[in-house]
Amino acid sequence: MSQKLKVALIQHSCTENVESNLNKSLEMIDISAENGARLIVLQELHKTLYFCQSEEITNFDFAETIPGPTSDAISSLCKKKKITVVASIFEKRAVGVYHNTAIVIDKDGTIAGKYRKMHIPDDPGFYEKFHFTPGDLGFEPIQTSIGRLGVLVCWDQWFPEAARLMAMKDAEILIYPTAIGWSPKDDQDEKNRQKESWITIQRSHAIANGLPVLAVNRTGLEEKESSAIDFWGSSFVADQQGQILSMGSTNKEEIIYAEIDKQKTEITRRIWPFFRDRRVENYDGLLNKWMN
Amino acid sequence: MSQKLKVALIQHSCTENVESNLNKSLEMIDISAENGARLIVLQELHKTLYFCQSEEITNFDFAETIPGPTSDAISSLCKKKKITVVASIFEKRAVGVYHNTAIVIDKDGTIAGKYRKMHIPDDPGFYEKFHFTPGDLGFEPIQTSIGRLGVLVCWDQWFPEAARLMAMKDAEILIYPTAIGWSPKDDQDEKNRQKESWITIQRSHAIANGLPVLAVNRTGLEEKESSAIDFWGSSFVADQQGQILSMGSTNKEEIIYAEIDKQKTEITRRIWPFFRDRRVENYDGLLNKWMN
Repeated sequence: MSQKLKVALIQHSCTENVESNLNKSLEMIDISAENGARLIVLQELHKTLYFCQSEEITNFDFAETIPGPTSDAISSLCKKKKITVVASIFEKRAVGVYHNTAIVIDKDGTIAGKYRKMHIPDDPGFYEKFHFTPGDLGFEPIQTSIGRLGVLVCWDQWFPEAARLMAMKDAEILIYPTAIGWSPKDDQDEKNRQKESWITIQRSHAIANGLPVLAVNRTGLEEKESSAIDFWGSSFVADQQGQILSMGSTNKEEIIYAEIDKQKTEITRRIWPFFRDRRVENYDGLLNKWMN
Repeated sequence: MSQKLKVALIQHSCTENVESNLNKSLEMIDISAENGARLIVLQELHKTLYFCQSEEITNFDFAETIPGPTSDAISSLCKKKKITVVASIFEKRAVGVYHNTAIVIDKDGTIAGKYRKMHIPDDPGFYEKFHFTPGDLGFEPIQTSIGRLGVLVCWDQWFPEAARLMAMKDAEILIYPTAIGWSPKDDQDEKNRQKESWITIQRSHAIANGLPVLAVNRTGLEEKESSAIDFWGSSFVADQQGQILSMGSTNKEEIIYAEIDKQKTEITRRIWPFFRDRRVENYDGLLNKWMN
C-alpha cells in the first residue's frame, strides 16, 4: 500500500519587520496548500532575522508564548486549509527561560505537539547558548493526522543520535527547520565544503534510519556590525535511501515541493535491516561525553 | 603542525586460487610502499572469493589462525618496507568459533591489534551470520606508530554508533575494509542509489566525527549457482569534512592513493564542535533495540 504525501518546504529571507516576515510565511503556506501540499514546513525562527548573531538582551523581546500570536495565526490557516504545519517559535516559557521550539499544528488547528531544540550551538555569529535554554522534552516524535513526525532543529542535524532516537520511537519522517549560512570571510571552496557537509550529514540520517528527511533553511544575507551570515537556502527533501527528491536554490525565496512515500520505509528496511543488527550491549560508551 | 600521511587502498578482484589472491595483495602493497604510502589498507576477506554467498560448511576451510600464514606473509613485508597495513582475515579462533577479523600490522612487523567485526549482516547472498561469530572485542582503536586507527569492517559502516565510539576513544582515522556489490537483478537506478548510499553514509561518519575515512572495497563479478554479486569497487578516501580526496573505479583493480592530514581534525572540530554539545543525559534510548 502506497502512502504518498505531498510536502512543501517554505524557504524565504527575513527583514526587521516581524509582521511582514510572518505574513510572508503565511502567504507561502497558503500557496503550498492550494498546490496540494498536506505537510508544510517553515524554516527555523521564520518570524525574525537570525538574531543570535549578537548577544543583546533586547533580543528576548522577540520571544512569545505557545500558544501565542504566531501559533494562533498559523493555527487558523491550518484549520482553514486542512493542512499540517511545522513552525518554529522563539518560545518564552517563563521570565528568563527561553527555548528554540518547533511546534506542529495539525489540520484541525490544534497544536499536536512541540519539540524544544536539544543540541544548542555556540560559535562566532551563532550565539545560541546565550539565547536558548537547552530543550527538556527529549527526542519524542509528534503524532499527527498524517503520521508521526520526528521534528528536530538545525544543530540537531549534525548528531546521528538525535535521528536514531526519533526513528526508534516510530518517527516516520525526519524534519529539520534550520538557519545556516556562510561567513562572507570564507573562500568559495570552504563554502562549498560546508554546504556539502550539511547536505551529506542529513542524507545520512535518511540512510541510517530508512526515513525521508525534510530540511528547510532560510536564504538572504543578514548583516550586523561585527559579522554577517549569507544563509545558503538549499532546502531539500531526501527519500529513505538518501536520494535528493527536490532541492531549492541558495539565494531565492521559493517553495520546494516533493512527494514522499512513507511506505518506502518498509521496503528499505527489509533490504538493509540495520536495526536488527545494532550491538546495543556494546553501546554504553555513547552515554559519555568522551571516553578517556 | 601538519601531520600528513600518504595512504593507499588496495582494490582488486579475487579468484578461487587463494595463493594467487594473496600474492596479488602483497604485490600491490609492495608497489604502494615503493610509491611512498605509509598506511596501506586491504579490502575485506582479500584472500578469498566472497564465500558468504552460500552457506557451505566447507567454507570454514578458508579460515586460519592469527597469527597464521596470511598475517605472517604480510608481517614480513611490513617489516621489510617499514609500512603499516590493515588486513582482513577469516579468523579461526577455536573449533566452531570463527570471526571476520581485521588486523593491523605495524612497520616493525608486529601485530599491533585486531578488531573482530561487530555488526554481522545476513541478507540474500550475504550469509554472514552463518559464518561469523559476532565480535567480542568492542569498538577499540588500535595504536600504531602512525596513529590510532579506528578499524571497522563493512556492515559496521552503516552504523553511526560504531564510528562515534571509535572517535570518542581517540581514533584518528576511520577505516572500513569492505565487500559490497550489486545484484545483477537490480536495475541501474537502484544500483546507483545503493552505491551512493554507501558513499554518503561513510562520508557522514567523517563529518559527524571530524575524522578522515578510508573505505576499501573489492571489485569483480563473483557468480554462484544461486546468486551473483558484482562488487562495485569505488574505494575512497574522505577528509574530515567528508570531502572525497580520491576514489577508485567500479570495475578495475587499482591502488587508490591520497594524502590525509590528521591535523585537520583539530581545525574541523574547532569550527563545528559537535562533541561539546552531545546531550548524553538524553541518549539512554540508544541502548535499546527499539523503543516501544
